[in-house]
Amino acid sequence: MTVELGNDVAHLGHVELLTDQFEASLAFFTQVYGLKLSALDGSSAYLRAWDDYEFCTLKLTSSPQTGVGHIGYRVASKAALDRRVAAINAAGYKVHGWHDGDESHGSAFRFESPFGHLFELYWDTNRAPSDDPSALKNTASRFTGVPPRRIDHVNLLSSDVAEFRRFMEICLGSRVTEMIKLNNGRLGGCWFTVNNKSYDLACTEEHGKGQGRLHHLTYATDQREDILRAADLFLEAGVHIETGPHKHAIQGTFFLYVWEPAGNRVELANAGARLILAPDWEPVVWTEEERKKGQAWGLKTIESFHTHGTPPAK
Amino acid sequence: MTVELGNDVAHLGHVELLTDQFEASLAFFTQVYGLKLSALDGSSAYLRAWDDYEFCTLKLTSSPQTGVGHIGYRVASKAALDRRVAAINAAGYKVHGWHDGDESHGSAFRFESPFGHLFELYWDTNRAPSDDPSALKNTASRFTGVPPRRIDHVNLLSSDVAEFRRFMEICLGSRVTEMIKLNNGRLGGCWFTVNNKSYDLACTEEHGKGQGRLHHLTYATDQREDILRAADLFLEAGVHIETGPHKHAIQGTFFLYVWEPAGNRVELANAGARLILAPDWEPVVWTEEERKKGQAWGLKTIESFHTHGTPPAK
Amino acid sequence: MTVELGNDVAHLGHVELLTDQFEASLAFFTQVYGLKLSALDGSSAYLRAWDDYEFCTLKLTSSPQTGVGHIGYRVASKAALDRRVAAINAAGYKVHGWHDGDESHGSAFRFESPFGHLFELYWDTNRAPSDDPSALKNTASRFTGVPPRRIDHVNLLSSDVAEFRRFMEICLGSRVTEMIKLNNGRLGGCWFTVNNKSYDLACTEEHGKGQGRLHHLTYATDQREDILRAADLFLEAGVHIETGPHKHAIQGTFFLYVWEPAGNRVELANAGARLILAPDWEPVVWTEEERKKGQAWGLKTIESFHTHGTPPAK
Amino acid sequence: MTVELGNDVAHLGHVELLTDQFEASLAFFTQVYGLKLSALDGSSAYLRAWDDYEFCTLKLTSSPQTGVGHIGYRVASKAALDRRVAAINAAGYKVHGWHDGDESHGSAFRFESPFGHLFELYWDTNRAPSDDPSALKNTASRFTGVPPRRIDHVNLLSSDVAEFRRFMEICLGSRVTEMIKLNNGRLGGCWFTVNNKSYDLACTEEHGKGQGRLHHLTYATDQREDILRAADLFLEAGVHIETGPHKHAIQGTFFLYVWEPAGNRVELANAGARLILAPDWEPVVWTEEERKKGQAWGLKTIESFHTHGTPPAK
Repeated sequence: MTVELGNDVAHLGHVELLTDQFEASLAFFTQVYGLKLSALDGSSAYLRAWDDYEFCTLKLTSSPQTGVGHIGYRVASKAALDRRVAAINAAGYKVHGWHDGDESHGSAFRFESPFGHLFELYWDTNRAPSDDPSALKNTASRFTGVPPRRIDHVNLLSSDVAEFRRFMEICLGSRVTEMIKLNNGRLGGCWFTVNNKSYDLACTEEHGKGQGRLHHLTYATDQREDILRAADLFLEAGVHIETGPHKHAIQGTFFLYVWEPAGNRVELANAGARLILAPDWEPVVWTEEERKKGQAWGLKTIESFHTHGTPPAK
Repeated sequence: MTVELGNDVAHLGHVELLTDQFEASLAFFTQVYGLKLSALDGSSAYLRAWDDYEFCTLKLTSSPQTGVGHIGYRVASKAALDRRVAAINAAGYKVHGWHDGDESHGSAFRFESPFGHLFELYWDTNRAPSDDPSALKNTASRFTGVPPRRIDHVNLLSSDVAEFRRFMEICLGSRVTEMIKLNNGRLGGCWFTVNNKSYDLACTEEHGKGQGRLHHLTYATDQREDILRAADLFLEAGVHIETGPHKHAIQGTFFLYVWEPAGNRVELANAGARLILAPDWEPVVWTEEERKKGQAWGLKTIESFHTHGTPPAK
Repeated sequence: MTVELGNDVAHLGHVELLTDQFEASLAFFTQVYGLKLSALDGSSAYLRAWDDYEFCTLKLTSSPQTGVGHIGYRVASKAALDRRVAAINAAGYKVHGWHDGDESHGSAFRFESPFGHLFELYWDTNRAPSDDPSALKNTASRFTGVPPRRIDHVNLLSSDVAEFRRFMEICLGSRVTEMIKLNNGRLGGCWFTVNNKSYDLACTEEHGKGQGRLHHLTYATDQREDILRAADLFLEAGVHIETGPHKHAIQGTFFLYVWEPAGNRVELANAGARLILAPDWEPVVWTEEERKKGQAWGLKTIESFHTHGTPPAK
Repeated sequence: MTVELGNDVAHLGHVELLTDQFEASLAFFTQVYGLKLSALDGSSAYLRAWDDYEFCTLKLTSSPQTGVGHIGYRVASKAALDRRVAAINAAGYKVHGWHDGDESHGSAFRFESPFGHLFELYWDTNRAPSDDPSALKNTASRFTGVPPRRIDHVNLLSSDVAEFRRFMEICLGSRVTEMIKLNNGRLGGCWFTVNNKSYDLACTEEHGKGQGRLHHLTYATDQREDILRAADLFLEAGVHIETGPHKHAIQGTFFLYVWEPAGNRVELANAGARLILAPDWEPVVWTEEERKKGQAWGLKTIESFHTHGTPPAK
């Protein structure tokens, strides 16, 4: 049953982001966006927010291209991982199999979405380094005044959102909380979750070219004010602010989108006290007509938001 | 296994609060605290916050006394309810059995904590009235500018917190996220959750007299600013502000406590973006010495916070 | 000397707004925007914010047209009023002379800008009604949880901003804190103040037709969060949100613009802790090229902001 | 006339703070509290907030003792300085005469309060260094995400507040906006301003021993949220948080008090949009009975707030 499968996967764990401007991207994430550096190895930096309990929620990897390397979800238990592996093996999607862990977690089971996005599930994980403790023992690391508290979600692009939805339901047991239904009958976008967060992954329709592209990666802030202050800091640092701060109509999230130096879109977001607690939540369905009203307070979605993704379409 | 049992119960659904000042309490909750009135029957008012998806999260009942009537949790499915009923029947706690529903939900299975708190589990529920829609279809009711977005948690008193913990784990499958360990080896308090919220119920040690007493009931706000503004409104309305706004060391919640006209303590709280996502979260344990530092920013806990509960000790 | 003349005028006192939808406009200002009704006479409503010390800061007047009726500044003393009257009489602008007061203040000296905007200066004034006291005796009226704390500024349109500037300096002793210098050498806009506020009146170039038109009227909020919450309330009330919330590059004000039912543009704004304290402040000059960057965080100014004014151009 | 004299003095310019822990105090102010270092000379650091237009608003000076060195106010013009000097020379207070300037301003006229507080008035001043520009040209220096936007006020102690008030009115032309009237007829405290800020200097009754003691020095933040976030940063840095965040009843300021390493009390404060615009403002008078209600939301004033000052009483 969907609900029980859903409980096998605990939460979005980390995203690997590829950059062809490694030094500049690392400087952005640590000095402007506000993540902490857990470790550096040959070609990757392991980053986390101040209240991420895991060692790494953003693996930033030097690469000839940009976009997303892989997406890792942590499972609810070792037994849950076994159940998920069996389900995925039976489903017919492309399976990469077991992959050695890295600085941040143990071995992981890897598989692909039909659109080339690489996913992994893992149980064994490393915790945030203990040499950076907070004065409050219920906080993962020392609070440093910067906005991102924890990883929030990732938004991927695909040419067939309905097919992507099937993949998410079968492989991760995700449920859909909101979606866009286009006039042509297609799904324009789907927002998924495996827990009480209103979403941990979104898939929206690819309007450019390419496989497995990334739309954006997002961290959560405690307050909306954190995002307003961050906007001023992005301005001072010369970061490209694409759109926001404003409030999404879908999901009601207060948002701000910028591009890190390599062109990957990153967001800061605040959902207030919103959670999906209802076990029988019916997905909210948005029509094209409703989308034409713009964002919650009327901001028109700017063109680049519909077209820009990483890696760039060729 | 605990984890799987935990998944049977979806979330705290509602709390019944008893008042011997029904009219004044109702005026407080609807005109000052900011809840919406879903319905009134003979002796109860059914109230909800603007984003509570259920018809009622606070059942306010006229009574010769104050305190808590019962605490309702909604289960994850009908099958989950059957499993919970079997587990509770087997556990040896006092069972009241099936109870007819009311304006807000279908039939419920009732049972008692060892300290006289009445609990119920239910599946069938009624939704927030549709005649008060929000402009945003993913919001349960029209936003009216008032702080409480949804019900958050309830805090009960008991003479033996360890025993209360056993009750919560067996009957609800709750897990403990934080706790106080006293120098005498007893538990001073336990914070429980059945989902990703950091807590939905707390039990702290009874320092007065009486059985089944309530410490406080809490609704969540979207932002800390909502609580600062509410403090000014409570001041203007002549409401007794007991303590706050300030930040708890335990759970890190930004809080404000007031007494409604009948003396029941109610809180507004904001947890920022904090969630318990780790499936293997180890409870945070606070010592007496750590508690002596006061709240997060040094505020000393005031005396009435340790002694006042409802109904008053006789 | 300019500085000493400047000290003769204490602050912007009130604005008279004309509406051809009196009932709807009054409902908007009292039920959505959040002003208090001090009094009603034949054709006008006298409104104020919760911390305006005067009886009226917005006089809303039923009229066949929209736009601004007059702008009132309060002087620093009776002697200061005499000095100002002498200076204005000597200046050659169109003078209307002494005008009887109304519900809100005593007799006022009236005169016109070269573009037909009617101004008045007055000393005797009435205070906010005493029957609506705050629990805090240093607050003008009872805080009701709504955003506008006090009147902030008004923005007028003129076909020659440099000429308007001369008028403001001579008649009110205003100083310019910021301005736009166009590539053609003209002033695109000027921000004026008579005190430590960074501006109390702005004049921007008229791009439509008509004399004496209003661009917008603004009240100040205590916090930026008040404006975000107001945006949700405007959305729920079906109010036309024109642009924002966002931060102006000029003056750094956090803003939100809506249209009241008759089409007059009204703003909520927050300047944080910004004040102009330097007695020798040099006006900040913005070029066309700098303006092309959009607002502070990159929002492009929308078309209607350049063209819409009241009364509508014919 | 008082009003015109008042206009001679433009604003509080800077405060010299003495520390017997120079390195630790400097680290606190630059790394935790959030000021910028403009310059260092032999024994002093010249500090400013990100939107202070002057080179220095806090002169931190190494000294065998703590407390306040001197308080500098900037005048409105050179002619205004001459008028003030004449008035002070005629008043009979202890005059130190002209004092050479320092890194931050030109020559200053120095004189003493009857309680030994050293004041100076000056016109020529240096601006914030131009090598740290903001992306917004109307902002004095680059925004760095830290709370203090500009210097706000200083609070001094004296054994006779009424006598101190006479001194402020005669020498600076200050006006009183709020005061405490004790049951014994004495003034318990007076809040002064020379401009539209609700206060730039407060004097409260000395309950310890010593002459010319400092109660606290305060910088203003843009938003209340800045203060809540700062509280977490003070906690992480092990700074002694004395009281707050909370809202003062007097002046309505949202506040947070900490002690810098040498024991001088420093505050972060936010007054929202409050300004004193009325030219005929009547001082708000608070009684002892009203003060017993505690701060605005009921917080009891803690004992050290009444007794701790610097230098420590001997």
